[in-house]
Amino acid sequence: MTKTASNTTAPTQLLEVNGLRYAYRRFGNGSGRPLLFLQHFTGTLDNWDPAVTDPLASGREVILLDNAGIGRSTGEVPETMAEMANHVFAFLDGLRLPTCDVLGFSLGGVIAQQMAQDRPSIFRRMILVGTAPRGGEDIMRLEKPSLAKHIQDPTNRGYDVLKKIFFTSSPTSQAAGQAFIGRLLQRKDDREPPSGPNVGSAQLAAFREWERFTGDRFADLKGIRHPTLVVQGFKDEMIPVRNSYWLAENLPNAVLLAYPDAGHGSLFQYADSFTKHAADFLSSESDSVVF
Amino acid sequence: MTKTASNTTAPTQLLEVNGLRYAYRRFGNGSGRPLLFLQHFTGTLDNWDPAVTDPLASGREVILLDNAGIGRSTGEVPETMAEMANHVFAFLDGLRLPTCDVLGFSLGGVIAQQMAQDRPSIFRRMILVGTAPRGGEDIMRLEKPSLAKHIQDPTNRGYDVLKKIFFTSSPTSQAAGQAFIGRLLQRKDDREPPSGPNVGSAQLAAFREWERFTGDRFADLKGIRHPTLVVQGFKDEMIPVRNSYWLAENLPNAVLLAYPDAGHGSLFQYADSFTKHAADFLSSESDSVVF
Repeated sequence: MTKTASNTTAPTQLLEVNGLRYAYRRFGNGSGRPLLFLQHFTGTLDNWDPAVTDPLASGREVILLDNAGIGRSTGEVPETMAEMANHVFAFLDGLRLPTCDVLGFSLGGVIAQQMAQDRPSIFRRMILVGTAPRGGEDIMRLEKPSLAKHIQDPTNRGYDVLKKIFFTSSPTSQAAGQAFIGRLLQRKDDREPPSGPNVGSAQLAAFREWERFTGDRFADLKGIRHPTLVVQGFKDEMIPVRNSYWLAENLPNAVLLAYPDAGHGSLFQYADSFTKHAADFLSSESDSVVF
Repeated sequence: MTKTASNTTAPTQLLEVNGLRYAYRRFGNGSGRPLLFLQHFTGTLDNWDPAVTDPLASGREVILLDNAGIGRSTGEVPETMAEMANHVFAFLDGLRLPTCDVLGFSLGGVIAQQMAQDRPSIFRRMILVGTAPRGGEDIMRLEKPSLAKHIQDPTNRGYDVLKKIFFTSSPTSQAAGQAFIGRLLQRKDDREPPSGPNVGSAQLAAFREWERFTGDRFADLKGIRHPTLVVQGFKDEMIPVRNSYWLAENLPNAVLLAYPDAGHGSLFQYADSFTKHAADFLSSESDSVVF
């Protein structure tokens, strides 16, 4: 635990496990259970908005992780969610953390679901933002025109593309996107190397595998009993909101919170509201998700 | 305003307007704008759960209304939502209340939408629970087997049927339904006469008319700019949750909150959670729904 409870200043640490090195940050304090952050497609530790991490770090430790092959974490980026989940297990076992809460965003929300199925005791409560169940649809189809026009636009350099694909085209949402990028850039030193194209291609392969299902669609979700807060923007082009409907309807113990005029980055656009509801949810000791 | 801030004890009042008499209750106090409650299919003032009305009455006045032909309100029960909305306008004009907040449940949520379209200034913020937009589907189809088996069961006398059709079959939800009925029965005196069969048939005709639409489906909702909190149970058999998805997706300024293992009566099943979120939402002075 560091003394500096912000993702703008928390030092990046390295943990050696099984011959691999995982890059992570751990900061904050309070009586709450540690909260693990699992990151979106191609994102690194530097993609976590301090407006989301820092308020949550005021009531508990937060732990941000780069999965294998991301940022300064070594190893290969896996092409399945199950292998990515195994890396997170190895990391948490290396930290000697038998259980925690989790905030999984997008790709990270899929990994969280996989982990909850593979080892239920690893999580107490889950927050799944902008994500999809196995068998979901239209997940990260970057080639579709509504996304490709932004991703392929050469004027969208660096974080600028996030303003286009994580936020809606409304002036309000675009302004929130600009503010989000400004917050990501507040961290000046000890930054992670950005992901290269190999990261995206492996993670996309994992998403394609995640869209496939056998047997009763969404039946796997019935076995995930964890209290789960599902959060989504109604205008998400990257993982459309119907995926969160399926997720929350089929998880036996989930509440759905959906935001207007928000895309994939709803948690960043409405960081004050999101962190307030998330903290209320996490502070409950009930077996029920309802808070 | 009465001194007794509970629907268990608040006296029923009568307001004469245009030769009609409207039965209502008005109680509570605080700095919040008055909150109008619009009731569900065949329900009277006595169907408002004190676990919902009373916590909200601790921060504002609440006003419960029997529409025309319900309880001790005179007049005919209209067969369209627009006419029901006109009765509420007449009542509020009679009270000299130019604007208020509204909690519309089921049928009441439909009337609230109609009012917001007909006279936008009448409401500041809206809470729409277990309801549907114009053009919604499977709205109050009491003849379908999942509902008819309970409604036609002669052992479900009085409020007992509500335990079956407002709650899920899980032990937890049924226990919440039993507690709900117990709370409705706490009021001993000055109760409203229950609705006869003519009430239901007229209100069902209005629902059938509400399912019809012309032009672009749900396009009317774009014009309702009010901050709107949409609340629904995932297992609602009376008005399925996809109606709330359509409502919240197409309203430009809506947040959706959906509850697990809950049917039509989600607000009663989770009264503590619902009233906490509702009060947070109502206490905001922002133009945005996000709270």
